[in-house]
Amino acid sequence: MGRQALFQRILEKKSCLCVGLDPDWEKLPSAVHQSNEHPILAFNRAIIEATAPYCVAYKINTAFYEILGAKGWELLQQTLSLIPDTHLKIADAKRGDVQHTAAQYARAFFETLRVDAVTVSPLLGKDSLAPFFQYTDKWTIVLGLTSNPGSQDFLQKQCNDQSWYEHIMQQVAQWVSPDQLMFVVGATWPNQLKRLRELFPDHFFLVPGVGAQGGDIETILRAGWTSRGGMLINVSRAILYASTGEDFAQAAAHRAAQYAAQIAQQINSLLS
Amino acid sequence: MGRQALFQRILEKKSCLCVGLDPDWEKLPSAVHQSNEHPILAFNRAIIEATAPYCVAYKINTAFYEILGAKGWELLQQTLSLIPDTHLKIADAKRGDVQHTAAQYARAFFETLRVDAVTVSPLLGKDSLAPFFQYTDKWTIVLGLTSNPGSQDFLQKQCNDQSWYEHIMQQVAQWVSPDQLMFVVGATWPNQLKRLRELFPDHFFLVPGVGAQGGDIETILRAGWTSRGGMLINVSRAILYASTGEDFAQAAAHRAAQYAAQIAQQINSLLS
Repeated sequence: MGRQALFQRILEKKSCLCVGLDPDWEKLPSAVHQSNEHPILAFNRAIIEATAPYCVAYKINTAFYEILGAKGWELLQQTLSLIPDTHLKIADAKRGDVQHTAAQYARAFFETLRVDAVTVSPLLGKDSLAPFFQYTDKWTIVLGLTSNPGSQDFLQKQCNDQSWYEHIMQQVAQWVSPDQLMFVVGATWPNQLKRLRELFPDHFFLVPGVGAQGGDIETILRAGWTSRGGMLINVSRAILYASTGEDFAQAAAHRAAQYAAQIAQQINSLLS
Repeated sequence: MGRQALFQRILEKKSCLCVGLDPDWEKLPSAVHQSNEHPILAFNRAIIEATAPYCVAYKINTAFYEILGAKGWELLQQTLSLIPDTHLKIADAKRGDVQHTAAQYARAFFETLRVDAVTVSPLLGKDSLAPFFQYTDKWTIVLGLTSNPGSQDFLQKQCNDQSWYEHIMQQVAQWVSPDQLMFVVGATWPNQLKRLRELFPDHFFLVPGVGAQGGDIETILRAGWTSRGGMLINVSRAILYASTGEDFAQAAAHRAAQYAAQIAQQINSLLS
């Protein structure tokens, strides 16, 4: 799904919500342990069914599956197959390696797992990203400014009146079309997000950090929404663990609906 | 295995060779396809048996397994179980994520896969590394200066007379003891390696880039060996694919023995 098609879908649905499927074993509601299938698959299935009406994308962070070893990767593959084709499938993997190894990762995510998009680290430079860019019908989502406090250690460091993350993003943006490149920009830095939108009017931003990490939807939509470039706003824990009781799926649906309503209201106000 | 113990083992064996177990499906010798077990497992088993006398560590790059999905992770786990306890087990994963996700990765590698060491990206800062550092009996191997040409795009960029990689490494070195911290420093940059050894006399360096990428063993040992800090020199393709015929294991043993002899000669000359 190219940039205009994705933007169109978001406008039709008036939602740019992405749900992060990061099942934390210790936080799973007890109800899923009574299921006939693996508790994580039962959990993901219920969450996807409950939230699909309100979101346009799902993001799977590989860490929450790798913790279970080979079984986790099986669950990851099974989870991907549960996501409807109407929704963008994002693997949040943050991979980054030298070229011939990066080529293996690109195949692993785009061919073996067949996701629509994968997050990657730009640290190793152009040749580490090139194998991903070869998949012109897929999205490569490059880390820009991450949502965590540790982004201040290096990414936000200033060099000649420019932060490292701005420099990195400006370089990367020269290497490939915005039709296949998104940037990760944390919701926890709304002022920086506003500035990045000025620098990158055409790029999709994948915005994590709403919910548990404290980012605010209205603020980031005002800062980052434009009629030329879009956003995907990711929420994971605040939806997944809205309730840990038997009503966890209904609670997740309710929470997702609340976020979607907030997003729709803000998009309407920005469009008017 | 702590820093002194690892150094001691290297001195006893007069080898700091690490063999990279990166099985590329398209390069596997046809002989392994006749095996009763999975060709990748048969290949890795033969390579480990052939090279164990000459090396002190094995490094497994996750990319070459993830390309096979869940089956790949199963093969990764089985391969780890083939490595003798006398040898350091390194997962070359280059993971890096926000803190609560990094904690899942740390558990995935140190508890589920039970490797001795894992490579990580420092890009997301201190809180992204902290969960790895909590495993004080394990090694966290942080990317310093990578061996690829793309390291010139960002890592080697200068800022106030200091390169980004030097700045990153100096910060990271303040966060945890050299007893549990190594740095990746590419063999393809011998002058920079020499300078880094002056800055970090006590740290182990994991040095990729010998063989297919062109790094030279004598040069890097002269630049990076000291009586206080050690090195692991990784070779992957040059050993794995020394021959693609039926004699692939003997050829790998022969090539590993050649590297080990070169290393031993150089260590002896540096010790004398």
